[in-house]
Amino acid sequence: MSEVTFTRLLTRSRIEPWVAFLRSHSAITRQLNADLLAEHGLTLSDYEVLLRLSRADGGAMRRVDLAESVVLTASGITRLLDGLERAGFVEKAACSSDARVSYAKLTESGRAKLEAAAETHLDGIDELFTGLFTDDELETLGSLLSRLPMTGAKQCTTGGECAPDPNACG
Amino acid sequence: MSEVTFTRLLTRSRIEPWVAFLRSHSAITRQLNADLLAEHGLTLSDYEVLLRLSRADGGAMRRVDLAESVVLTASGITRLLDGLERAGFVEKAACSSDARVSYAKLTESGRAKLEAAAETHLDGIDELFTGLFTDDELETLGSLLSRLPMTGAKQCTTGGECAPDPNACG
Repeated sequence: MSEVTFTRLLTRSRIEPWVAFLRSHSAITRQLNADLLAEHGLTLSDYEVLLRLSRADGGAMRRVDLAESVVLTASGITRLLDGLERAGFVEKAACSSDARVSYAKLTESGRAKLEAAAETHLDGIDELFTGLFTDDELETLGSLLSRLPMTGAKQCTTGGECAPDPNACG
Repeated sequence: MSEVTFTRLLTRSRIEPWVAFLRSHSAITRQLNADLLAEHGLTLSDYEVLLRLSRADGGAMRRVDLAESVVLTASGITRLLDGLERAGFVEKAACSSDARVSYAKLTESGRAKLEAAAETHLDGIDELFTGLFTDDELETLGSLLSRLPMTGAKQCTTGGECAPDPNACG
């Protein structure tokens, strides 16, 4: 592909921040995943599933909503939940209002695992992202990023910003 | 999980930019993927593989290096390359210096497909990311992001910033 094609719409100075955005996301999430695996035997996706469940009413969500929230296919979420079920962190549940719907429910053991893993995860975020900026710089960065398209609360993996899932089994 | 745990290291104002970083990355890559699928029948990973090959010497790379560069497992890269081979965009090749090593090589048809898809992809990046900022804002954003850990040239999907792959078959 010719350089001409690549610079038609985007000059080099304008493309660099985009490339930095992709490359930093990749490096940071890889490291967060590696840290969770090494210290808690959880992948980043495992962690996100446990976190999503912990925020849902009754600690339970429809499996299909969980898959959507962590961007996994049906077979992907099944494999992931199988692992978490074998470890005792998640159990199968039925919703009282509709027994046909399959739910995943956080166990007490899963909640304890999540709390332990959160320490590692928050340390990682501080080391790899927030701790690299002053308060003012973080405010500038947040303000610029807030202009971008966003997924719903689905990708929220850390703070208290995520609204409860409306589809959780009450 | 208690709010106390979540605010131990990271106050809400410091965690918000991190959440925006994750949520915007998710939304933008989902949309870029959807656009490539709808207009060219390629996933974002397909596109990244074609782009990586187009930059390698002779348009060929070891399959194992390709897998690493787009963060796919061995089975994942096999499935992806099977699809690209069936479509005629990639072909199997052996390296002249070591016939035991399995390479993937971009075909002329694959190069044409990549050039067409790049138009869509660059339009998408402009619409979803770069076009939302002034030159000064982009410079500020790029400067802040450049402080973050980065993968090598592996995640570079667009501009002229990627060095040739040292492991490409010459």
